[in-house]
Amino acid sequence: MKINTNFENLKENYLFATIAERVAKHKADNPMKNIIRLGIGDVTLPLSRTVVNAMKKAADEMGDKPTFRGYGEYRGYDFLQNAIARYYAKNGVTLVRDEIFVSDGAKSDAGNFLDIFDKSNIVLNPDPVYPVYVDSNIMAGRKIIFTNGNESNGFLPMPCAKTRADIIYICSPNNPTGAVYTRDALRAWVDYANEQNALIIFDSAYEAFISDDNLPRSIFEIDGARTCAVEIGSLSKTAGFTGTRCGYTIVPMELMAGKHSINKLWYRRQATKFNGVSYVIQRGAEAVFTDEGLSECKANIDYYMGNARILCDALTSMGISHTGGTNSPYVWLRCPNGLGSWEFFDKLLNEANLVGTPGAGFGKMGEGYFRLTAFGSREDVIEAVDRLSKLK
Amino acid sequence: MKINTNFENLKENYLFATIAERVAKHKADNPMKNIIRLGIGDVTLPLSRTVVNAMKKAADEMGDKPTFRGYGEYRGYDFLQNAIARYYAKNGVTLVRDEIFVSDGAKSDAGNFLDIFDKSNIVLNPDPVYPVYVDSNIMAGRKIIFTNGNESNGFLPMPCAKTRADIIYICSPNNPTGAVYTRDALRAWVDYANEQNALIIFDSAYEAFISDDNLPRSIFEIDGARTCAVEIGSLSKTAGFTGTRCGYTIVPMELMAGKHSINKLWYRRQATKFNGVSYVIQRGAEAVFTDEGLSECKANIDYYMGNARILCDALTSMGISHTGGTNSPYVWLRCPNGLGSWEFFDKLLNEANLVGTPGAGFGKMGEGYFRLTAFGSREDVIEAVDRLSKLK
Repeated sequence: MKINTNFENLKENYLFATIAERVAKHKADNPMKNIIRLGIGDVTLPLSRTVVNAMKKAADEMGDKPTFRGYGEYRGYDFLQNAIARYYAKNGVTLVRDEIFVSDGAKSDAGNFLDIFDKSNIVLNPDPVYPVYVDSNIMAGRKIIFTNGNESNGFLPMPCAKTRADIIYICSPNNPTGAVYTRDALRAWVDYANEQNALIIFDSAYEAFISDDNLPRSIFEIDGARTCAVEIGSLSKTAGFTGTRCGYTIVPMELMAGKHSINKLWYRRQATKFNGVSYVIQRGAEAVFTDEGLSECKANIDYYMGNARILCDALTSMGISHTGGTNSPYVWLRCPNGLGSWEFFDKLLNEANLVGTPGAGFGKMGEGYFRLTAFGSREDVIEAVDRLSKLK
Repeated sequence: MKINTNFENLKENYLFATIAERVAKHKADNPMKNIIRLGIGDVTLPLSRTVVNAMKKAADEMGDKPTFRGYGEYRGYDFLQNAIARYYAKNGVTLVRDEIFVSDGAKSDAGNFLDIFDKSNIVLNPDPVYPVYVDSNIMAGRKIIFTNGNESNGFLPMPCAKTRADIIYICSPNNPTGAVYTRDALRAWVDYANEQNALIIFDSAYEAFISDDNLPRSIFEIDGARTCAVEIGSLSKTAGFTGTRCGYTIVPMELMAGKHSINKLWYRRQATKFNGVSYVIQRGAEAVFTDEGLSECKANIDYYMGNARILCDALTSMGISHTGGTNSPYVWLRCPNGLGSWEFFDKLLNEANLVGTPGAGFGKMGEGYFRLTAFGSREDVIEAVDRLSKLK
């Protein structure tokens, strides 16, 4: 057997696996210290009551012969597809049911979607970037080019007509920088993609954190997106599903690669290598999109955004430059005193027992920056800000 | 964007998607007919009480802040890894916890596992074969060779020293033929793989249907397997999880491709493209492996095997040659009167409103054969046998 040697081009560990190992070592060395984790973007508030009840009801149905369900539909149950379509309709986006593919999460889809594309495609990624967009393309041996985010463009790089690309990743609100593209900016990307006959993979995992109605929550709010874009959505942050696992990918019927329907190709891939998401979980996900579910999830999001405000206010008062934290649960800051990302990571961990994510883990443009998340408990965030302010 | 043109080499539809479409059309044309489905291997008995209660308890935990869980471990929760390890220990197989990767099902793992292997590997498949083993390799552009199952070898092809192969798929008890390899036969495959420096992907999805203690339930019961094999397990048939979604893949620490640990490579792949299985579902899966869970699942399996006996007895009395149906939920029969597989499929559907799976869908050696499953209700199986016997 011969391994896929592209794996040799990867860093040995996935970024968050590396961080988890360093933190575990610190914890083992300092068992009495109270470590506060504002690193990995993991939620801390429990699932909403509506979601829990829906899952319990579904579990009971699975235990009763007349209501038991075996294999589901490859694209997901119609009740959940319909719920997602109604959610999009609220933002003025009309979707056909079979454009919605339910999955076990945005990360799986972001990685697996590439199965249907040739190795020769040129991938355009922003830098800094969510590592999955890069690592999954390294695994496939694709050429990756970068467009740089920095303080002068507000970490929102724009397309350059001279750059050739086939597959473009856009995450807005952005992970890791918290920056959000305007409608005009996204339109420029959509126009660019249509001109280049390129595909945009739009990651909308953080759309629920947008409170400014002028900002687009879906790429499909932009004219022309249906011929050049797919959108990957997630309930992980919207509804606290990081450990519950449900997301979706929207693949418009108009989206073609030459004579090939991308929707059909993705269906063929999923039907062959995936068997859908648990019925119990799909019922939980459906409950997220009810009025009650949305209202309960909104309360959690408001709580997290309260944390984000505390973090941003503290950074401002410490004179630390930062973006994000409004319309996004991520706060992206310049490491103080010119420290490198991992230097600041170690300093925070060792001196303040505080875990964040080194910006350098998101690409070379992230060097000298650092990501904090608003997903902690209020007490932890207040304590974290206090420890930050006392850092020497 | 350029698609992966290997997809053009696939049949347009996954086999079971094609069948589902034909049956849906028949149903639409004949809305009053009672169609009995013994086609796709989908279970019909509900989840066991122990599993349902575990999932409900876990859902409650997810709704309560102190017990809420965010992202899990990439390999699965230790409680489930430990439960699987204990299950294997009963058959004398010792596993290290981190050799067990929990997944959303055998189909996902069977497809995704190939990500870590080069395109140049030669894949050896049995024929007839579960389509996923073939289609996922066609998608990757790998060369596939076949070893033929037929009545003279009891649909259990053996290795041939002259055949070069890098990746070998073995499914025992077999889907679709129901045939089961003996210990000696598996040992021959393990020796062959070790000699060839090849990998065996052993699919043990139907091991729980083995009642003959002389037959191996795991490839790891065979000496030498830990240096040449991975095993993909599933709760779909063992515990009625087709719609609940949980399986696992066992990757021994000793398994190397040159200097590369396959366990490490698979971990890197999963950490990058997968975020684990829902906590609620993992708690349900853990419950399967308790004494109560195993006993409840065993009762369901006994019920299905009662169906298999009814099917086999009826075929015997009709003089129809068949294999499987003991130690396996699948009954594999020669189509009567020299009919082709799809001819017999259409005849059964149109004249008896009975759905089976055409053997030809599993490869050229399946032509002229047909698969029935024992997963229906007792009443349906009795009615199906009656309809079969009246077929002209």
